[in-house]
Amino acid sequence: MSENKIPYKIYLSEEEMPRTWYNLRADMKNKPAPLLNPGTGRPMTAEELEGVFCKELVAQELDNDTPYFEIPGEIRDFYKMYRPSPLVRAYCLEEKLQTPAKIYYKFEGNNTSGSHKLNSAIAQAYYAKQQGLKGVTTETGAGQWGTALSMACGYLGLDCKVFMVKCSYEQKPFRREVMKVYGSSVTPSPSDTTNVGRKILAEFPGTGGSLGCAISEAVETAVSTPGYRYVLGSVLNQVLLHQSVIGLESKIALDKYGVKPDIVIGCAGGGSNLGGLIAPFMGEKLRGEADYRFIAVEPASCPSFTRGRYAYDFCDTGMVCPLAKMYTLGSSFMPSADHAGGLRFHGMSSVLSQLYADGYMEAVSVKQTDVFRAAEEFARVEGILPAPESSHAILAAVNEAKRCRETGEEKTILFGLTGTGYFDLVAYEKFHSGEMHDFVPTEEDIARSLAQLPEVN
Amino acid sequence: MSENKIPYKIYLSEEEMPRTWYNLRADMKNKPAPLLNPGTGRPMTAEELEGVFCKELVAQELDNDTPYFEIPGEIRDFYKMYRPSPLVRAYCLEEKLQTPAKIYYKFEGNNTSGSHKLNSAIAQAYYAKQQGLKGVTTETGAGQWGTALSMACGYLGLDCKVFMVKCSYEQKPFRREVMKVYGSSVTPSPSDTTNVGRKILAEFPGTGGSLGCAISEAVETAVSTPGYRYVLGSVLNQVLLHQSVIGLESKIALDKYGVKPDIVIGCAGGGSNLGGLIAPFMGEKLRGEADYRFIAVEPASCPSFTRGRYAYDFCDTGMVCPLAKMYTLGSSFMPSADHAGGLRFHGMSSVLSQLYADGYMEAVSVKQTDVFRAAEEFARVEGILPAPESSHAILAAVNEAKRCRETGEEKTILFGLTGTGYFDLVAYEKFHSGEMHDFVPTEEDIARSLAQLPEVN
Repeated sequence: MSENKIPYKIYLSEEEMPRTWYNLRADMKNKPAPLLNPGTGRPMTAEELEGVFCKELVAQELDNDTPYFEIPGEIRDFYKMYRPSPLVRAYCLEEKLQTPAKIYYKFEGNNTSGSHKLNSAIAQAYYAKQQGLKGVTTETGAGQWGTALSMACGYLGLDCKVFMVKCSYEQKPFRREVMKVYGSSVTPSPSDTTNVGRKILAEFPGTGGSLGCAISEAVETAVSTPGYRYVLGSVLNQVLLHQSVIGLESKIALDKYGVKPDIVIGCAGGGSNLGGLIAPFMGEKLRGEADYRFIAVEPASCPSFTRGRYAYDFCDTGMVCPLAKMYTLGSSFMPSADHAGGLRFHGMSSVLSQLYADGYMEAVSVKQTDVFRAAEEFARVEGILPAPESSHAILAAVNEAKRCRETGEEKTILFGLTGTGYFDLVAYEKFHSGEMHDFVPTEEDIARSLAQLPEVN
Repeated sequence: MSENKIPYKIYLSEEEMPRTWYNLRADMKNKPAPLLNPGTGRPMTAEELEGVFCKELVAQELDNDTPYFEIPGEIRDFYKMYRPSPLVRAYCLEEKLQTPAKIYYKFEGNNTSGSHKLNSAIAQAYYAKQQGLKGVTTETGAGQWGTALSMACGYLGLDCKVFMVKCSYEQKPFRREVMKVYGSSVTPSPSDTTNVGRKILAEFPGTGGSLGCAISEAVETAVSTPGYRYVLGSVLNQVLLHQSVIGLESKIALDKYGVKPDIVIGCAGGGSNLGGLIAPFMGEKLRGEADYRFIAVEPASCPSFTRGRYAYDFCDTGMVCPLAKMYTLGSSFMPSADHAGGLRFHGMSSVLSQLYADGYMEAVSVKQTDVFRAAEEFARVEGILPAPESSHAILAAVNEAKRCRETGEEKTILFGLTGTGYFDLVAYEKFHSGEMHDFVPTEEDIARSLAQLPEVN
């Protein structure tokens, strides 16, 4: 296999694109713990979940056994609009680092929503449409997920109501505007359109809102509006299933060139990208067919894997959603306002949590000024302005490549470049002007929010 | 040739990518008129031009005979970072329009600068580096060109001084910030760093600046700073040469599938994209090997082809640059502040002007609210948020496709989608809120600025 035959970018042909999603849970010996009803403490049934989520998505959520789900033709057609995403051999970065390591990244930012979130957005919107629903509701913080869902709904002619955390709504008018281009209604949260919103507004009149509050408003609107369901962009099993397209495409592309990664690296907030990227590789590891190192990279300011507890917790601060067993910092944990990027969720996908608990995966946490330094270095040599979230993975990959430079090992590193930073330039500006700081929660900070874990544990 | 074999996106392999640029002038019977020295009225010599531009670029600028220029290996390597750009079959748009027309677009927005400008930026930066220069200067209005040049210079380790029109510097802080990520210095123009800047500041203390003034500052800085030259992102012959990569890739991709466009459409400001896209097709037409319709699309608010005069004019409002023969509205013409997108240049590439004068090309002008309506429709069905500039071409392509729906003709339409609209969301917001207006200059407006054409005519 001649190394120099590998192009800068590997694009699969349409025929080579995956026709199925891969359900990692089917190959896990220890299945992820089920969602629990917060009222009864018992596993959520399909019937209970179908009041909030689309029927087909509930089936996907609960299925721990079926390894492959066929991707419906209409979703595959939509994927063809922006997929296959390129698998890039980072020749320029390798040269810059003077490393013997071979670095690849799967770039998911080449679509207008600017991130991998679209892979699941179109799937969730499709099943909602199939079910004959009128529309969906969701929340968005930084706005990546809201934009992706707006694109998907705009394409299918489905109504989309986005609750956007109020401070973000005001600080990121462009994100809001993109969603409107795609026909979504965008409501700053908390709003006076829901009971929970009105209650919070009465209690905290000047609040800038929170993701937890926006989730609660979106869920309330979904369950109280005929023909609507709630959708979510990360954490859930179904989301990881859809995002497996990232890993499947990567593996097909690498297999074509006879390349096997030694290390697979992804940033981790709720786990949607990481879970998708590692899926087929982790499958081989679980089945004992191959071995890989997997590294989850999280912000030092929100370190659920590296400093959280593996326990049942609420997914939202409003405590209306089911309980999930996961590595968590406690649902009241809030990363400092100094924290610029996404990856702010207090918990982590149950699938990834179980794999981490079982020792199949490593995790590291990194400081944000180091992350932005790596982002800028990457932008200059690879020509892509990365999202802050994605840059966590860049930093970890660069650190591994530098280690190879010291040891002389020619390791092959694959990482996920989840998106672009066009809407994060306020953070880049803070970094440049020296106004960006590193925040690491104290032991007391974490102990305080963990003290509020639900009694079911 | 089976139609349904054509994928949504055609990517060339690295081996299929062009190894040469194509110089359209070599096949023109009537060559474009030479640049004139504004002082003497005589054609600019290479020696005169080399005080401002890099030596190799001057050679390219003046060469009307050599049909192909080899693309240096280092530029081809850089191209591989973000090229080939996809040639997209717009199946979704065709379906939406219910047209028998077959629509293709060449999408140049998949790089961090967000447009085709990078194709020439890397070439110009490369030759500056080869010449042993320390750096380059340029001006930027909306910021696409400045961003592209910053990326190219950041990659090659060349210093880059950008003069950014002051009102744009203030209104588009994100554009400014991207340039800084790539290591450029960005100075709001007019500034106190140049004689011309100081003079204008003294005369108009509160001015928001203009492209013409920024050009003058960039040129002054280049000629007065040892080791620096001035570079420009459009209008010049050399820029069209570099941009031919757009058309060459498009033609190779279409030829692979046996597809021949009937109509080729591009937006036209200074002509960099249009000239690049049509190059190899126009070459065939000039050589009598094939026939195509070419349509230049310009804003009704800045209609140089459709309402300008073919005459020698200044390229800048400061009147320091050489005179170019072109379709022009007069160098003092300013489109209304209501005009949101780029395509604001008062003149047009000399190459395209000569071709238009000789009847090889058509031109239409379109109103901006129609342009934004087409942009939004396109974004919803094709998933790409287009730049306002590119959306001029979208509108013209849609209009042609609708004509096919009426006549039943199965025409093949190719248009250039030059870039993305991430940094134009203020304009999208104005469009949504109904605050966007159409501006069409009166006969008197145009006559007034044309009255100031230089005496050489």
